[in-house]
Amino acid sequence: MRCIGFDPGLRKTGWGIIDVSASKITHVANGVCESDGSDLSKRLLSLYKQLEEVVKKYKPDTAAVEHTFVNKDAAGTLKLGQARAMSLLVPAKAGISVAEYAPNTVKKIVVGVGHAAKEQVEHMVKLQMPGTIINGSDASDALGIAICHAHHVRFEGNLEKAIKKAVSLK
Amino acid sequence: MRCIGFDPGLRKTGWGIIDVSASKITHVANGVCESDGSDLSKRLLSLYKQLEEVVKKYKPDTAAVEHTFVNKDAAGTLKLGQARAMSLLVPAKAGISVAEYAPNTVKKIVVGVGHAAKEQVEHMVKLQMPGTIINGSDASDALGIAICHAHHVRFEGNLEKAIKKAVSLK
Repeated sequence: MRCIGFDPGLRKTGWGIIDVSASKITHVANGVCESDGSDLSKRLLSLYKQLEEVVKKYKPDTAAVEHTFVNKDAAGTLKLGQARAMSLLVPAKAGISVAEYAPNTVKKIVVGVGHAAKEQVEHMVKLQMPGTIINGSDASDALGIAICHAHHVRFEGNLEKAIKKAVSLK
Repeated sequence: MRCIGFDPGLRKTGWGIIDVSASKITHVANGVCESDGSDLSKRLLSLYKQLEEVVKKYKPDTAAVEHTFVNKDAAGTLKLGQARAMSLLVPAKAGISVAEYAPNTVKKIVVGVGHAAKEQVEHMVKLQMPGTIINGSDASDALGIAICHAHHVRFEGNLEKAIKKAVSLK
């Protein structure tokens, strides 16, 4: 199963792709899509096209986006919402389901602690996929989200198997 | 010139289309795109597809979106931002420029007062385009935004002409 994770932002949207089997996680690619200028619709279109290219090239089976931290800066939240919509729309348009995870869930699954520092996530991402060259902190966060999603899907799969087994033993 | 106006929202995005000549404004169509359910990416995709259909059918030359009122409810602002991105992306993808107007600007241009009530906008929209059947308040707001944009573009055109004339008289 191939997972893509997104760390959305209007200026920079990080993305990270991993392949997941029953026993291991392998890095596929990671990067950052950037947009600038004053025309918001053109910036969103630019992010959309870059993300579409990534999805077309790597053909992920499933996607995950960080559930944006809603801060007190309403104008910033609005901008983030607009950029985030591109990370949700592009996979949906390609027929891929998109899961959402709270930042604390990502940290808890990747690092083991809900309130871990950003650097710890990066450290654990590198530890899990040794030798991977990561294109900055946004790409690293995106890989963290993909890893979180992989564990979640795997856990759900195992749970399903365990339930089936328990039912068959009855 | 054909203008499309959008009043964005995740549950309901209103749209309104008008034709604008030097002397008059004519109603073309108006409506509401709706989305519901718990899967955010699917809701955004649904809005995207509905808006794309409207733009393909009516082929506007220019578009305008209300500059969202940023309120204190951060979760609501995030949702709105995500929905708003669809109204910005769809015309941009069709090669149409998208202008943004603050709600007070729309009210000032359509009604004459920056702090007019919503009902007044609807009233003035109906007055300017008699006999028009309007599909609810979101579509009415969208038509208001389109009218605002038409006046703005017309004013800019007149200003350009006046400057050219003034320069040629020198």
